[in-house]
Amino acid sequence: MTSLAMIEAAAHRLSGQAVRTPLLSSPFLDRIAGRRVLVKPECLQHTGSFKFRGAWSAVSALAPEVRARGVIAYSSGNHAQGVALAAARHGIAAVIVMPSDAPEVKIANTRALGGEVVLYDRARESREEIGAALAAERGLTLIRPYDEPQVIAGQGTVGLEIAEQAAEAGVTRGDVLICCGGGGLSSGIALALEAHAPDLRPRPCEPEGFDDVKRSLAAGQISRNTAESGNICDAILTPQPGEITFPILHRLCGPGLAVTEDEAMRAMALAFARLRIVLEPGGAVALAAALFRPEEIDGDAVIVVASGGNVDAGLFRTALDRFGAET
Amino acid sequence: MTSLAMIEAAAHRLSGQAVRTPLLSSPFLDRIAGRRVLVKPECLQHTGSFKFRGAWSAVSALAPEVRARGVIAYSSGNHAQGVALAAARHGIAAVIVMPSDAPEVKIANTRALGGEVVLYDRARESREEIGAALAAERGLTLIRPYDEPQVIAGQGTVGLEIAEQAAEAGVTRGDVLICCGGGGLSSGIALALEAHAPDLRPRPCEPEGFDDVKRSLAAGQISRNTAESGNICDAILTPQPGEITFPILHRLCGPGLAVTEDEAMRAMALAFARLRIVLEPGGAVALAAALFRPEEIDGDAVIVVASGGNVDAGLFRTALDRFGAET
Repeated sequence: MTSLAMIEAAAHRLSGQAVRTPLLSSPFLDRIAGRRVLVKPECLQHTGSFKFRGAWSAVSALAPEVRARGVIAYSSGNHAQGVALAAARHGIAAVIVMPSDAPEVKIANTRALGGEVVLYDRARESREEIGAALAAERGLTLIRPYDEPQVIAGQGTVGLEIAEQAAEAGVTRGDVLICCGGGGLSSGIALALEAHAPDLRPRPCEPEGFDDVKRSLAAGQISRNTAESGNICDAILTPQPGEITFPILHRLCGPGLAVTEDEAMRAMALAFARLRIVLEPGGAVALAAALFRPEEIDGDAVIVVASGGNVDAGLFRTALDRFGAET
Repeated sequence: MTSLAMIEAAAHRLSGQAVRTPLLSSPFLDRIAGRRVLVKPECLQHTGSFKFRGAWSAVSALAPEVRARGVIAYSSGNHAQGVALAAARHGIAAVIVMPSDAPEVKIANTRALGGEVVLYDRARESREEIGAALAAERGLTLIRPYDEPQVIAGQGTVGLEIAEQAAEAGVTRGDVLICCGGGGLSSGIALALEAHAPDLRPRPCEPEGFDDVKRSLAAGQISRNTAESGNICDAILTPQPGEITFPILHRLCGPGLAVTEDEAMRAMALAFARLRIVLEPGGAVALAAALFRPEEIDGDAVIVVASGGNVDAGLFRTALDRFGAET
């Protein structure tokens, strides 16, 4: 299980390796949301998402002789790139199992970062089985994307930074909206806030139709999505909350929030115009919730974790075409 | 004249007001440039450019009874927004004199930030004369965009941060490429680096055809541009280096660099894909120089100040259309 001590140790290992992302704000966004909005732009993290933190945490925690044999990961793209870069910086091999329908830019970038990409069919094959088989065959260590204590510890460093930076901005009470797939980022942040900012309440955000975490939190038990793909928020589509992450989320998080694909795209256009950052749809759902679900949020200020920015130029242009004039 | 003590005092006044922007990097940009590239993204600063620093520095340095009468500024857009927000946060009036051909987004944002916008014809009228007349008539204090010691001191805080952050990244020697208009940012950074990182060499970057600073540095005396507009890098088109800034630039800077409009647009597309930040053309010229003029740069690492990101969605889409596939 991930402890606060593990998160703080991960922060120590990540020091000088990860970007300490600032908190950004804009009076224009405050006006739309009806409260202060503070955005933690993890799209500026190495490889374009928070995933580098967890990947570095896990790879750097391995015993040297184990690490030397290499690592393997399965991922729709962001975890893949995080593990590929963390492995490359450690000088070890990284095999990455990716769905064949992952965004091209993520597949290409994973390869360019030194990852050996193995594609699979999301509808017919199990990435977990493929990962386990390759790991056994080649002596690689599997780095799970979220159900892995050292990965959760790495993502939790976002929470340590939020606790400090929000206090500096005068915010010690309010909701922290977090883009959520399997729950690694949300559970890590929740553990860090529990210790360092107990009046900041973590709340997972998801796309409508893929709101397994929201429904699981409401039901008090793990609930699955009916579909596994078919939404532009590819980065955060997971079948269900993790077995390790869900108990943490259930204990520490407020209710989940869900937004539409169009709301995610509008949030991308507003982040472009008002924060000058690039978000991918899955990285924009928490901002979308802050802006377009104000009645579901408590407090004078809301903190948003914008989790990633690995988006094809074509899809980004579409968001600007459709919503760029509204900003 | 701006002194190091003034820059440090400005840093103190800006603490908690300005974003401490991180240094960003990408192995993909390193590969193109042939050396490490560390980017200081001032597009993430409040109002979308470094100009907020100088504006806050100048407004906060005024005597309270003088400040209470309000301020006036002339600007193509970024200084305008910086002064408007700094004034609004101080609860005072800000009159902003802007060219009628400034980007719409900058005019609209300046108004939305509380600025009272006065438009003028760039080809027929002098913004300096309009500013001086309005200042006298209404008792406003003129906040010059660059030839103003407290503005230079505010911009110099970027240099203080670079000195610290570059050292943390292991870089104490190399070129610092800076997008340059009138020279306020470049001269402020140069003064800060002279004291805190003397082996980091500031180098102004401009668009070809509007490289008055580059030519002035080469000639050892102030040289004017022949045209005053007609380039997409609107944020950094100034007729000539400032009377106050030029002697500082001449004493402390290495040779200037100049890039084409297409190179600035390519740098915008690469910053989108590799750093997930939004740059305007004028804010991208230093990155363009780092990527496309490697033979004019010294050292194993180069630092880039990406100065602003206030760009219309249409122009940004054009950059992605033309150069988004090359990334």
